[in-house]
Amino acid sequence: MSPKALLFDVFGTVVDWRGSIIAEGAASGIDLDWGGFADRWRAGYAPAMERVRRGELAWTKLDVLHRTILDDLLREFRVEVLTEEQVDHWNRVWHRLKPWPDSVAGLTRLKKKYIVAPLSNGNVSLLTNMAKVSGLPWDLILSAELARHYKPDREAYLTAVDLLGLRPEETMMVAAHTGDLNAARGCGMLTGFVFRPDEFGLIKMADSARAGEFDFVAGDMADLASQLGA
Amino acid sequence: MSPKALLFDVFGTVVDWRGSIIAEGAASGIDLDWGGFADRWRAGYAPAMERVRRGELAWTKLDVLHRTILDDLLREFRVEVLTEEQVDHWNRVWHRLKPWPDSVAGLTRLKKKYIVAPLSNGNVSLLTNMAKVSGLPWDLILSAELARHYKPDREAYLTAVDLLGLRPEETMMVAAHTGDLNAARGCGMLTGFVFRPDEFGLIKMADSARAGEFDFVAGDMADLASQLGA
Repeated sequence: MSPKALLFDVFGTVVDWRGSIIAEGAASGIDLDWGGFADRWRAGYAPAMERVRRGELAWTKLDVLHRTILDDLLREFRVEVLTEEQVDHWNRVWHRLKPWPDSVAGLTRLKKKYIVAPLSNGNVSLLTNMAKVSGLPWDLILSAELARHYKPDREAYLTAVDLLGLRPEETMMVAAHTGDLNAARGCGMLTGFVFRPDEFGLIKMADSARAGEFDFVAGDMADLASQLGA
Repeated sequence: MSPKALLFDVFGTVVDWRGSIIAEGAASGIDLDWGGFADRWRAGYAPAMERVRRGELAWTKLDVLHRTILDDLLREFRVEVLTEEQVDHWNRVWHRLKPWPDSVAGLTRLKKKYIVAPLSNGNVSLLTNMAKVSGLPWDLILSAELARHYKPDREAYLTAVDLLGLRPEETMMVAAHTGDLNAARGCGMLTGFVFRPDEFGLIKMADSARAGEFDFVAGDMADLASQLGA
C-alpha cells in the first residue's frame, strides 16, 4: 500500500471555505450574517452540480455555478450596492480561500515523497489562483474540469489517474468527506481521511471516521504526513 | 501588453533534450552514437504527431509515440540486450531531461509576477515527473494532452487559455521555435522568443528571431525575466 500520488479534495479538506468567506465578508464593511451567507452559498453548490451531473445542464465551470448562486443570494440578502466588478471580485472569494493552519506545512512534507495535487470540483483557474495566493505547493493542478465531470462521477477520478500515468491503486484520494472517499475507493484508489471538525462551524457535524474505515485516518495534514513516512 | 500567464514550450526551450539523452546514453555503458540516436529519436516525433493531427491515429500520449519510435531505433542500432523494464526506463529519459542552466532561476523569477506553466506536446505525467526531478517551479501543468490535440493545432493553445480563465491576449507563449510562436499568435496570444543556439548540436541551425519579430525576443530565460520586469 504505497501510493505514488496523493490527490486532495480542497474545499473543507485543504482550505477553510466558511471561515474565509466570513472573514472577507466582515472585512468588506457590509453588515450581514456572513456565516449564514456562506452556508447558503455552499448549500447551493450541490444541487447546481447535480444538474450538470444529470446532464440537465451542459458542462459548466464551478466559477459560473458560484456566480449564479451568488446573484440569487445578493437579491435575497438585499445587497444592492455592488458594481458588476465588485460582484465578480466577490465571486472569486473562492479563489482566495485560506488553508487550514496545518495544510501548507503538511503538503510541503508530503511533496518531498509523493506527487501532490488537488482533485477538486473547483475549476483549474480557481485552484491555480488559490495556490498562488496561499503558497499551496502542488506539483500539478488536477480538477473535475479536466474530465468535464464533477465528483463523485467516476470520470473525475479516473481522468486524473490516467493523466498521472498511474494505476488507480498507485494513487490515494485524501478528503474530509466520506462520500468523496467512497467514490474514489470504488474506482480502485487508496483513501485517506483527514478530520476537519470545524468545517461547518456549529451548524452541522463534520464527517468522522473510525480507524480502519479508510486506508489512512488522520487528525490533520501533519498527522497524515507522519503516517505516510513523509 | 501585460500578460498574466506565461506558457512555455519545453523540449528545446526549457530543457536540453539532445544533451540529456547523450549524457544518459553515455552513462549507460552501451557504446553507440548517442548524438545520432537522439537526433533520430527526435526526428521520428514530428511524423508520429502528424498522424495524430491528421486523424490517422486516435489520440495517443507522447510517451507511447516515443516508445514506438524507440522500438524501431533499438532494432536499427542493434541494441538487443535490454529487458522490457530497461526499455521502459530508457523511454522515460524524456521525463528526466535536464533544464538549460538558466531555466530554473529564470522561471523562479518569472513565477513571482506571472502564472508560469508548460504548454508542451509532452504528456502531463512526463511534464510532472520532469518538474519533480529538476525543480522546475511550475504553477500548474498544461499540456496538449488536455486538449487531445498536438501543437500547432489551435485547440492545444485555446484549451490552455480557457483552463486559465483568461483571454488569449492575457497569455504569452514562450518558445525557441518560430512555428510554435506563429501558431500561438494566430490564436491571439502574445509571443516571446528565447534563443537556444545549442538545441540541435552541430547538425542543424536553431531558429533565431530579429528584435520586433515577436512581442519579446530574449537571449535566455534570465533576459526574458528582465525584459518582463520580473
